[in-house]
Amino acid sequence: MLDIPTKPYPKQDLISVDDHIIEPADVWTSRAPAKFKDRAPKVVVKSDGAEVWQYEGQERTHGGLSALAGREFEEYTVKAFAFKDMRPGCYDARERVKDMDLDGVRVQICFPEVPGINGESFLRLEDPAFRDWAISAYNDWLTDEFQPTAPGRLYGHGILPLLEPEKAVAELRRIVKRGIKSIVVCAWIDAMVPGARRLVDPCYDPVWSTCEEMDVPVNMHIGGGRGVDPSVLTAGIPGLAEAFIHRAQLNNFETLGDVIWTGMLERHPRLKVISTEGGIGWLPYFLEWGDHVYERHRHWAKTNLPHPPSFYFHRQCYGAFLDDPAGVKLRHTIGVENLLWESDYPHSDTTWPFSHRRVDEQMAGVPDGERRKITWENAARLYKLQ
Amino acid sequence: MLDIPTKPYPKQDLISVDDHIIEPADVWTSRAPAKFKDRAPKVVVKSDGAEVWQYEGQERTHGGLSALAGREFEEYTVKAFAFKDMRPGCYDARERVKDMDLDGVRVQICFPEVPGINGESFLRLEDPAFRDWAISAYNDWLTDEFQPTAPGRLYGHGILPLLEPEKAVAELRRIVKRGIKSIVVCAWIDAMVPGARRLVDPCYDPVWSTCEEMDVPVNMHIGGGRGVDPSVLTAGIPGLAEAFIHRAQLNNFETLGDVIWTGMLERHPRLKVISTEGGIGWLPYFLEWGDHVYERHRHWAKTNLPHPPSFYFHRQCYGAFLDDPAGVKLRHTIGVENLLWESDYPHSDTTWPFSHRRVDEQMAGVPDGERRKITWENAARLYKLQ
Repeated sequence: MLDIPTKPYPKQDLISVDDHIIEPADVWTSRAPAKFKDRAPKVVVKSDGAEVWQYEGQERTHGGLSALAGREFEEYTVKAFAFKDMRPGCYDARERVKDMDLDGVRVQICFPEVPGINGESFLRLEDPAFRDWAISAYNDWLTDEFQPTAPGRLYGHGILPLLEPEKAVAELRRIVKRGIKSIVVCAWIDAMVPGARRLVDPCYDPVWSTCEEMDVPVNMHIGGGRGVDPSVLTAGIPGLAEAFIHRAQLNNFETLGDVIWTGMLERHPRLKVISTEGGIGWLPYFLEWGDHVYERHRHWAKTNLPHPPSFYFHRQCYGAFLDDPAGVKLRHTIGVENLLWESDYPHSDTTWPFSHRRVDEQMAGVPDGERRKITWENAARLYKLQ
Repeated sequence: MLDIPTKPYPKQDLISVDDHIIEPADVWTSRAPAKFKDRAPKVVVKSDGAEVWQYEGQERTHGGLSALAGREFEEYTVKAFAFKDMRPGCYDARERVKDMDLDGVRVQICFPEVPGINGESFLRLEDPAFRDWAISAYNDWLTDEFQPTAPGRLYGHGILPLLEPEKAVAELRRIVKRGIKSIVVCAWIDAMVPGARRLVDPCYDPVWSTCEEMDVPVNMHIGGGRGVDPSVLTAGIPGLAEAFIHRAQLNNFETLGDVIWTGMLERHPRLKVISTEGGIGWLPYFLEWGDHVYERHRHWAKTNLPHPPSFYFHRQCYGAFLDDPAGVKLRHTIGVENLLWESDYPHSDTTWPFSHRRVDEQMAGVPDGERRKITWENAARLYKLQ
């Protein structure tokens, strides 16, 4: 068994910008209006004892790589499992805060699970009225129940009905007033949601303008993309699944490249974009090679940017990481102000319950002031945390 | 106009492992047997003056980003153009050597153009007899004409009829005897060639075993892949073409991951694999995150490797680069012995005719011994050059 600490870590300073909610069973059923009472996402126990989320004819399992905090690596599994086999901090906010104490993490900002890590599952819901309600109900649960559990310590990235940008703007205004600090959007919305246009399409500009106006950071988590070929998982060649997991982070190379090269950040100079769980060790290459491409190819390509890509990254982008010595070594190329830390609780890659040890190992030799910025000050400023 | 030097560079030391041939018009027509006389790839001048290569009902242009050496970046174009508008060193080996002299490059090892940079266009030829002949004729031209132009200074990576591994083995044995030092294979053969199995499929093992036996390095150049979505070039959103060029190198992350994780290098411990034009700045992340995945995920994934991915990379892989300060800074994480230099002549990203200046800029502060290894000694040893 993992040697889990029994007392709070002496230093409660880390701010993690990437953790994951396993929604408790009543998030939607407890707040469904009469017309959606039967359709609200709910947990059903199947005849074989397995738990699944059901809604609109879909079934969605939980457990697997998403709820492994507290297990030895030898006990890791991709298979689904039930609430009772998870560490309670996965789905119970009070228990989550206790786990944060053990790990020395002051704040977690969490992504959704049932709506899709980037909200993509709910965006695929066909009935617009039900879709809007399911999205708003999740946001309401965040501000009514999850966040108030431990004021100033637990946050959730809000989700938006992005397919209809004017509705997304209205929902954004509504939830920010209720205490949401940031949103998550699906970087590969056109690949993952039928009928959606690319995220960098100007049709979404009203949403980004509102984010600028309200100073709301936009988070994009790995977990999709155009380069994703799920056939590797069933190709019958051993090792392809691991190779797939190994390179999954690199989808955020495409995300950042798209938002920069298409002028989305040039058009929205105060927009803040976060690459989440993408790692940071490839960012120095991203920046240097991007400027090389700008120098050589902007003439024939008629690039519509007055500045090279690194300018926009340094002004508006952030890279979040949990285990990335190479990125920490080249932090001055990336920008010490452009880095954020994450604990990825309770997913398979989480640093919990040894986050401080892992930070110490990576940051040996990093001056205290820089370490503070990377592990909490940048996040506190970006997300306007107290 | 570019300020092209007029005298040989004082130091003739660099070995470039990645340059590109623009085949002269008679490579195939001059050596076609009677039965293929009419089908041999040939250059045809169209009614509008444009030049195209024609064979087996296909047309293939040249020029564009592949033949820009000597032009200012402002004069770069993606459009096709004729031999007469190229610098003669593109297609004339004698002139190429003079250009190498001006740049201080002692050796170039070159990739094919008409057969496809990774040989993929010829692999798609449907008639096996014609395909085999076209491949062998290219290899013959390399050893009969191209390489003898300047013995010890010009080399070409050979191509193989990989769809039939036993034929590939025979061709490999044949061309190595004739003076070929290395081969190029298509990393994404299953995605680019109908009917082909993945490169890491054990069906190709006889080829790799022969490469081990004959000590022939296997080169994989960017320019394809499963993550490649050409729709970005026509999506109508400005900037997507540049973003696509920016991330094209990252396809070699997948290539290296696949050959390592599937056990291809474990099964072939003396095989040498080169990531060409993929850049090196992301390799520290590749290595560190790969070992993280191995530590956490190998139990449930039943990974069949006794060592972590970095072990195989350091033992058997090489990264070639031309403009990559981040990678040079973290050269000790990658391995000084695992790095190769390239000039990419005459493509759009070439360092020609200022290769030494660009090397000096990137290698400021790098000890002489390490610089020598990276810029020529590693290549001389790997490719067994005199």
